Amino acid sequence: MTWTRKHLLDIESLSAAEIMQVLETARTFKQVGERAIKKVPALRGKTVINLFIEPSTRTRISFELAAVRLTADVINFSTDSSSLKKGETLKDTARNLEALSADIIIIRHSAAGAPHFLARFLDAHVVNAGDGAHEHPTQALLDTFTILEKKGRIAGLNVTILGDILYSRVARSNIWALTKLGAKVTLCGPATLVPRVFEEMGCRVTHKVDEAIENADIINLLRIQHERQRKTMFPSIGEYTVLWGLTKQRLEKTKPDVLIMHPGPINRGVEIDSQIADGTRSVVLDQVTNGLAVRMAVLFLINGGVDAQGAAPSVADPRLGKN
Amino acid sequence: MTWTRKHLLDIESLSAAEIMQVLETARTFKQVGERAIKKVPALRGKTVINLFIEPSTRTRISFELAAVRLTADVINFSTDSSSLKKGETLKDTARNLEALSADIIIIRHSAAGAPHFLARFLDAHVVNAGDGAHEHPTQALLDTFTILEKKGRIAGLNVTILGDILYSRVARSNIWALTKLGAKVTLCGPATLVPRVFEEMGCRVTHKVDEAIENADIINLLRIQHERQRKTMFPSIGEYTVLWGLTKQRLEKTKPDVLIMHPGPINRGVEIDSQIADGTRSVVLDQVTNGLAVRMAVLFLINGGVDAQGAAPSVADPRLGKN
Amino acid sequence: MTWTRKHLLDIESLSAAEIMQVLETARTFKQVGERAIKKVPALRGKTVINLFIEPSTRTRISFELAAVRLTADVINFSTDSSSLKKGETLKDTARNLEALSADIIIIRHSAAGAPHFLARFLDAHVVNAGDGAHEHPTQALLDTFTILEKKGRIAGLNVTILGDILYSRVARSNIWALTKLGAKVTLCGPATLVPRVFEEMGCRVTHKVDEAIENADIINLLRIQHERQRKTMFPSIGEYTVLWGLTKQRLEKTKPDVLIMHPGPINRGVEIDSQIADGTRSVVLDQVTNGLAVRMAVLFLINGGVDAQGAAPSVADPRLGKN
Repeated sequence: MTWTRKHLLDIESLSAAEIMQVLETARTFKQVGERAIKKVPALRGKTVINLFIEPSTRTRISFELAAVRLTADVINFSTDSSSLKKGETLKDTARNLEALSADIIIIRHSAAGAPHFLARFLDAHVVNAGDGAHEHPTQALLDTFTILEKKGRIAGLNVTILGDILYSRVARSNIWALTKLGAKVTLCGPATLVPRVFEEMGCRVTHKVDEAIENADIINLLRIQHERQRKTMFPSIGEYTVLWGLTKQRLEKTKPDVLIMHPGPINRGVEIDSQIADGTRSVVLDQVTNGLAVRMAVLFLINGGVDAQGAAPSVADPRLGKN
Repeated sequence: MTWTRKHLLDIESLSAAEIMQVLETARTFKQVGERAIKKVPALRGKTVINLFIEPSTRTRISFELAAVRLTADVINFSTDSSSLKKGETLKDTARNLEALSADIIIIRHSAAGAPHFLARFLDAHVVNAGDGAHEHPTQALLDTFTILEKKGRIAGLNVTILGDILYSRVARSNIWALTKLGAKVTLCGPATLVPRVFEEMGCRVTHKVDEAIENADIINLLRIQHERQRKTMFPSIGEYTVLWGLTKQRLEKTKPDVLIMHPGPINRGVEIDSQIADGTRSVVLDQVTNGLAVRMAVLFLINGGVDAQGAAPSVADPRLGKN
Repeated sequence: MTWTRKHLLDIESLSAAEIMQVLETARTFKQVGERAIKKVPALRGKTVINLFIEPSTRTRISFELAAVRLTADVINFSTDSSSLKKGETLKDTARNLEALSADIIIIRHSAAGAPHFLARFLDAHVVNAGDGAHEHPTQALLDTFTILEKKGRIAGLNVTILGDILYSRVARSNIWALTKLGAKVTLCGPATLVPRVFEEMGCRVTHKVDEAIENADIINLLRIQHERQRKTMFPSIGEYTVLWGLTKQRLEKTKPDVLIMHPGPINRGVEIDSQIADGTRSVVLDQVTNGLAVRMAVLFLINGGVDAQGAAPSVADPRLGKN
């Protein structure tokens, strides 16, 4: 299949086949990551700009390393010292970066829709690295990649997402990806954070944690996002843990082969028991490793990575050859 | 002509022939920027340090990309986390960077003369990326490059610089470059910001905006620099716009082929009407693109880029060959 | 000799032979630094992460350049924008970086023992870039390298360390390195900052500056570390200079070939007279230059740089060949 998208803005607009193409390409790049020299020349001479208007060290580093592994030149641009403070609009900032011949602009922004806005007027490729409470597509792709890697399939699996769904771009992107690929998604958490309206996205909504986890093949725990909650949506952190945290007692009631996922950073002892985070069912660090392969795949594909015959890259592809 | 300068400290001390040599070299590098792989090995193994004691994201990124395109290794050093806070002198900081084998130090500093000060004791090459209200030579070179590219000549053109001249290093460097190359420069703005003393630099000074723009071939609009104005030099932003801003009404009174320039970042609706900034006469984004080529040329020339015969590089030069 | 250590955590646990192996390897890398193209491909495709939880521009840049010269990919991770603020533990941060396939993590941390803590659970190599008041091993290695380069030997030399010993990781690491290599170490400074307990490390302790410096072959002046002194340990900066600063009068009483060292950044006019810092006996900038070679050697050795026969690299080693 030939990849045709210029940007990666969200999961909502991707087809199941497109999602699968990213995951298959990522599998190739994961193999590249196991070589002694992990770099490939696919983006040699290309300029990738990390435009992070909302701070995020992990995601920025993951994208930076993905681009570096593809031999791109990477420039980091964060708000801390930016001319946005001098009153420049986001549009002007982005057009300036393009005028500096940026080939790919990776944007994180606190406003939902910011990447789509840039894509409307830029010639450069745009990748959404998280926009407000809207979407975080590469997180959903790496989560889906990890499930596929560990379970061998997505369709028919029961995936429970537990926590702050309302304000979570991770949840939204995961719901889109998982339902498109045929998984059954259950959402659970405080009623204030998990409204029934999510049923319209094809999910089951429940506010009973035991019910949510008992048949789950995957439990994806979200971080409590204090910074995104304008007013308190639950009484206290301690009460959240008692009512919704994944404790050892609760884990005992789950399937023995359940996968425990978390987008990080983890609040140990809040949404997840510390021993569970480090336990054999946890794939939290696999998610991080897979994020690198998935982001390499995304940068590779939007840059036109598929060859004239529409073949996905194999490890024998000269563009993935020695640097 | 053989380039003989070790540093680029200002425009004032350059000859017209030297300015033209930078612009011609930049033209070659602009062609390099249109290749599929935009990098050349001219500065391979060289270390370039961006020493930005005054924050500036755009200029820093432009220099960083210019150095990266020349295959230099680039280190960013900004005040935010610097040992300058621990009481180290600028001289010691610079000598330390040189001891770390910096080949080129690009300095931005709030104090006029800081680059000249460094050049007196360093063996490394020094490039002025803006020093106080004194000079910003690469900005003037990219502005001149853009005029030459669009108009085919500099001599005899009427260039109007409009706004805060007194505190503007951009204005000073432009005045030097333009008058050396034979343009007629008119300065205009509030009397408090455009004193008559600039006539000594060979400029016409007027405080009537209609008079300043009617015969202009180029109008270069400066940013209102709140941060550099210790006391208020004009009543209010709104009044500035009414009296000095480039509005549609004013644009109608200019030559039909006038070029509108601005060093950025733009205050839309203050010194320039938003539609004019995005209009066909505006070359604001060309300036940004040309900045990259001009800065590559500067780094290349001061590093000894001209060959033994004194020839400027051509695109056939092996140093500009494949990386 | 085959290098067997996976990490560089401290000097205390190194043997004299291991210290010498670093210094000999650094001598090779210093020669590489004198080539036209100073880069070698030894760490091509490896990822080095500068994890600086305590800010330090100089040490970060020195490590960054060392890694870049070895052709590694370097990612800078500092507290300013980190997820540590979101409540993530140091252990989780480090394991995440490793999951992103970091090969070497260089850590600076305000807590003594942080690098040892990371080394217990990481597969990645760990380098201590300064941990609290405990150790700063690469500083001691570069100091020792500089002494060896200038004096031709270490054994039997009289080395005086003057200043704030109690809170100084530089002092601790230097004491270990120098005593292991057979130097005689004298510690001097205010009694509050130079307690007698250091005699147990094999040093002479004196609170009389003239006695400390008269027979010294090397005087190593430490920075007054305001930030590490929880309460005032001496009356005032002015009084410190009078009582303990290296003034011209004091210098006259030293051996004519004494070396003056300082880890920087220098407080001119406080712990050292400005003219002495710039004088012929000062090797302060040599220390900075040698730091680059020493850090290249450390990264090279822990990454398994010694060949199958256990030979230290020579400049003819293909891994040190053209890039």
